[in-house]
Amino acid sequence: MSSHTESRFAADVYGNRLERVVELMRAAHLDALLITPGPDLRYLIGSAAESFERLTCLVIPADGATPSVVIPKLELAALEGSAAGDLGLPVLDWVDGTDPYQMVKSALHVGSRVAVTDAMPALHLLPLAESISGLPVSATPVLREMRMIKDAAEIDALRTAGAAIDRVHARMGEWLRVGRTEAQVRADIADAIVEEGHTAAAFVIVGSGPHGADPHHEVSQRVIENGDVVVIDIGGPVEPGYYSDSTRTYVLGDPTPVVAAQFAELEAAQAASVASVRPGVSAESVDAAARNPLTAAGFGPAFVHRTGHGIGLSVHEEPYIVEGNDLILQPGMAFSIEPGIYFRGDWGARIEDIVVVTEDGCESMNNRPHGLTVL
Amino acid sequence: MSSHTESRFAADVYGNRLERVVELMRAAHLDALLITPGPDLRYLIGSAAESFERLTCLVIPADGATPSVVIPKLELAALEGSAAGDLGLPVLDWVDGTDPYQMVKSALHVGSRVAVTDAMPALHLLPLAESISGLPVSATPVLREMRMIKDAAEIDALRTAGAAIDRVHARMGEWLRVGRTEAQVRADIADAIVEEGHTAAAFVIVGSGPHGADPHHEVSQRVIENGDVVVIDIGGPVEPGYYSDSTRTYVLGDPTPVVAAQFAELEAAQAASVASVRPGVSAESVDAAARNPLTAAGFGPAFVHRTGHGIGLSVHEEPYIVEGNDLILQPGMAFSIEPGIYFRGDWGARIEDIVVVTEDGCESMNNRPHGLTVL
Repeated sequence: MSSHTESRFAADVYGNRLERVVELMRAAHLDALLITPGPDLRYLIGSAAESFERLTCLVIPADGATPSVVIPKLELAALEGSAAGDLGLPVLDWVDGTDPYQMVKSALHVGSRVAVTDAMPALHLLPLAESISGLPVSATPVLREMRMIKDAAEIDALRTAGAAIDRVHARMGEWLRVGRTEAQVRADIADAIVEEGHTAAAFVIVGSGPHGADPHHEVSQRVIENGDVVVIDIGGPVEPGYYSDSTRTYVLGDPTPVVAAQFAELEAAQAASVASVRPGVSAESVDAAARNPLTAAGFGPAFVHRTGHGIGLSVHEEPYIVEGNDLILQPGMAFSIEPGIYFRGDWGARIEDIVVVTEDGCESMNNRPHGLTVL
Repeated sequence: MSSHTESRFAADVYGNRLERVVELMRAAHLDALLITPGPDLRYLIGSAAESFERLTCLVIPADGATPSVVIPKLELAALEGSAAGDLGLPVLDWVDGTDPYQMVKSALHVGSRVAVTDAMPALHLLPLAESISGLPVSATPVLREMRMIKDAAEIDALRTAGAAIDRVHARMGEWLRVGRTEAQVRADIADAIVEEGHTAAAFVIVGSGPHGADPHHEVSQRVIENGDVVVIDIGGPVEPGYYSDSTRTYVLGDPTPVVAAQFAELEAAQAASVASVRPGVSAESVDAAARNPLTAAGFGPAFVHRTGHGIGLSVHEEPYIVEGNDLILQPGMAFSIEPGIYFRGDWGARIEDIVVVTEDGCESMNNRPHGLTVL
């Protein structure tokens, strides 16, 4: 896309983040951070640049020098929408035939302890490691706490995303009908995700009947039948890059008493998990709040995945709501709560909301009814 | 997507590739290849699995042991459409709480010289490097020659992709009209790319008027005006994963004599470059065949990029058609020929075909008229 100032926050937001990250780098005894395109780059300078075979890299030295951006001359336009200009970051552009990895090394100042973004591909990481003569470490320990705690503007973007995906779920009856294939329903939902304000449809899972029992099923040519239970898990980004992600379960015609009863257990478990969220409790306790009642009801083996994942500029990020994660929740953390029950070869169901931790509980970004919606 | 046997070739194609890659690994004194999701994984086992925070990795030992696949239990379905089952590759699934990097290390057998796919993100590369106690090297020197020389089935897929994108260009008059924004035109083109047989619209550049002078401009809210020259550069993948990529330049109303004359130079240069392609000539000579006549006509400074890039399971791959690349072309190599002329602030033009080297020349995958198309 060409320049969109609406695709990022005000420049001082990024200026403050860059100052904070330098403090954290120093505390972690790092000399520099190297950030190629991906969610970390978008977080730090508001650039939605993509990763190509030519290196683009934000270089943040810990010695207090202004960060700089190494970028192919041809891709300079990708920086226009970012905060790099407003922040006065030096731009080191390069043309085919020069060595951008040596340019990064020069911009490092010192370079014994270098950390890189998790998104950096081996294509760039291996020559960078060669030019700096050593294996870098991950930048995530420095960036995770900053990215995990969303500020008011980020929460507002997640709220906008949640409302947009709620509007898509509200329209599900327009598309989800007996006689249509999952693929046809998916195409309509993908269009609606964009119509309702997302910049793209990032994922559309339509799991009908037995396909609903596979939590990672996406779509198929299966024709939806009367009586099918259908899991719809959908989302995408809204500007400036924050994701929605919400699942609801539908049924074509009235559910059987067994399905209705089992779904009611799931609905209660999901609600209990949401109700358990507040500052000071652990991530794993929120997982347990969903898992324990399902296990007590005999559905332990049917709930085959973790309860949730963090969300923001990435669809999946920290904090993960999973057994073994003793991370203590703080206000501003944003994550999914999405327990499911899966009966292989038969049917499945899942309910998913994105919640943000508040001072005394949590706010849900998704507010559609949680019950089994009869279409 | 759920299992699609149509999304890959027959299993023996992949069996042969795996045998060949082991020979090349041995010649390169490598002990193992580690391939996470991306074009290399699709090339080697026909899997379109995506890269997530949980590790999926094909492990190919050089000692002749059967390659194995380390994959999260939850994502096992992503392997169903691949050739892994037909080839009898051991599948090592893992659940949250176990260490997949140690599983990879165990599957390596020996592990002093390990190569990784260019697509592997730092998220997985850094812990893998730690578990194998050393920095890996790039797998590309081993894989590049195999991936560069397309076989008959791959060329057929490129032909299908080329015909599909040609059909989209043929319909351009339906959407590209005075008074519409670039973004509106782009949305219609993206829909048509899918309608005409692609699985997705990977990129849609609509560069109208002065925007045509920026080769990496994508789209904007600019309203198309009478007299505009418009660069349309579009493409996407067709099953099993091969890309189209074709550019044509349009004009709204009759072009000025100057535009018509300058475009004619570009058209002749692009044709001369295509005509220069045959086995035995170098990649850089094909670049020169487009660049020399443009330079002679005074457009050297206006042609700001290389002439082309290889294409296949990636939009950009080797061979690159660029000055300094003395690679000798061989039958089966596939790449773009896309010279352009760019007059900043005014207008620009580009013509792009994908060609495949044959025994005595080349075959073009794109066959729409190359002239400035008046709409």
